[in-house]
Amino acid sequence: MMLKELREKVYEANMDLPRHGLVVFTWGNASELDRERGLYVIKPSGVDYDKLSPEAMVVCDLEGNVVEGDLNPSSDNATHALLYREWGDEIGGVVHTHSEAAVSWAQAGRSIPCYGTTQADYFYGEVPCMRGLTPEEIEEAYELNTGKVIVEGFEGKDPVAQPGCLVRNHGPFSWGRDAAQAVYHAVVMEEVAKMARDTEIIGGHCPTAPQYLLDKHYQRKHGPNAYYGQGKKN
Amino acid sequence: MMLKELREKVYEANMDLPRHGLVVFTWGNASELDRERGLYVIKPSGVDYDKLSPEAMVVCDLEGNVVEGDLNPSSDNATHALLYREWGDEIGGVVHTHSEAAVSWAQAGRSIPCYGTTQADYFYGEVPCMRGLTPEEIEEAYELNTGKVIVEGFEGKDPVAQPGCLVRNHGPFSWGRDAAQAVYHAVVMEEVAKMARDTEIIGGHCPTAPQYLLDKHYQRKHGPNAYYGQGKKN
Amino acid sequence: MMLKELREKVYEANMDLPRHGLVVFTWGNASELDRERGLYVIKPSGVDYDKLSPEAMVVCDLEGNVVEGDLNPSSDNATHALLYREWGDEIGGVVHTHSEAAVSWAQAGRSIPCYGTTQADYFYGEVPCMRGLTPEEIEEAYELNTGKVIVEGFEGKDPVAQPGCLVRNHGPFSWGRDAAQAVYHAVVMEEVAKMARDTEIIGGHCPTAPQYLLDKHYQRKHGPNAYYGQGKKN
Amino acid sequence: MMLKELREKVYEANMDLPRHGLVVFTWGNASELDRERGLYVIKPSGVDYDKLSPEAMVVCDLEGNVVEGDLNPSSDNATHALLYREWGDEIGGVVHTHSEAAVSWAQAGRSIPCYGTTQADYFYGEVPCMRGLTPEEIEEAYELNTGKVIVEGFEGKDPVAQPGCLVRNHGPFSWGRDAAQAVYHAVVMEEVAKMARDTEIIGGHCPTAPQYLLDKHYQRKHGPNAYYGQGKKN
Repeated sequence: MMLKELREKVYEANMDLPRHGLVVFTWGNASELDRERGLYVIKPSGVDYDKLSPEAMVVCDLEGNVVEGDLNPSSDNATHALLYREWGDEIGGVVHTHSEAAVSWAQAGRSIPCYGTTQADYFYGEVPCMRGLTPEEIEEAYELNTGKVIVEGFEGKDPVAQPGCLVRNHGPFSWGRDAAQAVYHAVVMEEVAKMARDTEIIGGHCPTAPQYLLDKHYQRKHGPNAYYGQGKKN
Repeated sequence: MMLKELREKVYEANMDLPRHGLVVFTWGNASELDRERGLYVIKPSGVDYDKLSPEAMVVCDLEGNVVEGDLNPSSDNATHALLYREWGDEIGGVVHTHSEAAVSWAQAGRSIPCYGTTQADYFYGEVPCMRGLTPEEIEEAYELNTGKVIVEGFEGKDPVAQPGCLVRNHGPFSWGRDAAQAVYHAVVMEEVAKMARDTEIIGGHCPTAPQYLLDKHYQRKHGPNAYYGQGKKN
Repeated sequence: MMLKELREKVYEANMDLPRHGLVVFTWGNASELDRERGLYVIKPSGVDYDKLSPEAMVVCDLEGNVVEGDLNPSSDNATHALLYREWGDEIGGVVHTHSEAAVSWAQAGRSIPCYGTTQADYFYGEVPCMRGLTPEEIEEAYELNTGKVIVEGFEGKDPVAQPGCLVRNHGPFSWGRDAAQAVYHAVVMEEVAKMARDTEIIGGHCPTAPQYLLDKHYQRKHGPNAYYGQGKKN
Repeated sequence: MMLKELREKVYEANMDLPRHGLVVFTWGNASELDRERGLYVIKPSGVDYDKLSPEAMVVCDLEGNVVEGDLNPSSDNATHALLYREWGDEIGGVVHTHSEAAVSWAQAGRSIPCYGTTQADYFYGEVPCMRGLTPEEIEEAYELNTGKVIVEGFEGKDPVAQPGCLVRNHGPFSWGRDAAQAVYHAVVMEEVAKMARDTEIIGGHCPTAPQYLLDKHYQRKHGPNAYYGQGKKN
């Protein structure tokens, strides 16, 4: 069986989604890239979390074709494949969930404003909301075009400095150096989605955090002179 | 004892209600139909969940009369019976809960707009809110007429494509091919009720998801060419 | 040791408060009356729930004097005593908590409108909010006067049909035939407080449930011809 | 190894943060002062809670220099050090979290009004929100100046009577006689932050609790004639 270790990692990342309360039933998926082999491992479609195993994971090539596995890959498979083709040098893990607060921003069609340091520690600014897909894009190749709309929405942006986005009327996608970090960013998105919602309940459309505060927090965690943690990034 | 296997299934479905956080105390009930025999199994009324057992379940005929069981059936029994009489060819399980967010929409007297794909994956459009019962309907045969108001509200609609509704000033009813799927749809209703509430907090009465997106999501899960999952529906 | 059995019951009722998520730290208390002896058992003040035991409960007479026990009774003791003196023929258990949603209504100084059947099953109408205490009432005998303000607020009302209230700027008090039922009503109050808050988020100050629906739901559970449950009330 | 007992206490206080639901991942820290030795013990930076141990705690002097420990101290270390230098005679424990509701008030830039007795039992009035740091303060010595802005914001206030504050666009800091009490106050802040948010949802910007009620509740717990509890403060 191919990619035994990567299957374990992707299995664990998928299992972390319900553990963090991000996923009900089968409403989420995580994948991770093996850059050398040009393959990635992804969750099978519509399988209950308590029936998942490392062996049930599906191996795909960068076109999204199944290379090994008896099960169908996640129905969002083509989105994962597209993101690895476009951004595979920068990111190595992708996650999609229907976590409640982040979905609510996506359904309202609004980017999550950066109101404070919780968000600034991971996102260098807002969590951007993508444009909606056209009827033609949906009809033609829905999941592939979901990926294309994300890449289009990040033109001029750095997917490492903004490791996630909202797909309009749908929900959050996040990414990172591996599946575990993409899960981490999915948790961050849900937390800041709740905080931003409540911030507006309390203060209306109040001012976002000033740019110099965002700079400071992002840099102390991720800049060349980062001093958060023990010499490794989160 | 009749319908041993069905009693087990209905017992498990009822126990899933508090597991999913949909039910406090005894505020919910699930039933399932045996189409061949023209009987259904339903939870007894007002019994604590930790005292339930398959043997405590009540067997009724399609008029709602108790055929086997020492306990009174759920006080909502006549609603279940009516739905099986009217829709028994299409649905085989019914669930009623007082889950918080869905009740809140019912109390506000509003259908849940379809703001995104989480809802579109299971409901082909809104979760409709029924009209209130008249004083006469309440006085005469409250639970029976609750069922009649639901059937009236679905004239011209397909109960399979919209597997649940809100009864005004009361709460959610859902259904499916069996009790387990009716529970599943009760969970979906509570999740989308929370998301729609928060969507309006964030975006006001923002546009609902476009019809072509609903079509796509519903079809990829439930249409003749469905490609979600492993060849079986959820 | 006096009232061994009642100590057990009051201990269990107090332990149910954190189990139901109504109490953080020591922010709640339950008591129950022994009508024949004219004594009641109440939680000691400020003791952690994981250090409580039946033996730690305090026995008081109807003036609130400690009859048995090494610990101080709950700081709200005088409120419990007053309610038993005034309503001891009708109620046998009292509970006070700082549960989040109910406190929020009390802080807003608003009664919880009866928007639906979840509330109507236990409260024949609104959950009433009492007037604030005057500076003199607070200074003179704060906890005693809290009880007096509750009794004053129920003039012309039936404490059995409305088994709880909100004390303004403070929080919920509930009662019932025993401590266990007072806890039950405290849970109901928190649930309907959340639902009513969310109902107004979704529908604004929408119409309350019609009186004939309240009549029906209250009567089917509590009236002479009640048919909910198995012949015993909840 | 120095301060063995204090390491245990600070370890337990830190572990209580996720137990109380105040902390996701590593987003929080607690410390406690040894007044005699002029040293304090603090959580290391960016270490997962399930990998913490008493031995992993870091000992610092009052300038914030590491005196013992292989790991970097919390990135907020300089804030803790400044608070002990300024207020070390009055407080002995400091906690910082990113708990959701308290962060939302901080992000909205609003102090939490005192709407009721839950807050008055611990805070003699509002939970104050500090001014934002200037770009120069952030650039020069961010964490040190965070502490300075807190001390400046408490000029004319008593940090014992208001044992916590909100740092604008950032989150809550709390303190107490030791780390355990600082954790306690962090829980109080999160609870009252939720209640005040919901109070305004229900009642708009309604009147705060009258001063005479605040006086009474604060005094019955903390005044010279306090009668809450068993003769020890919480």
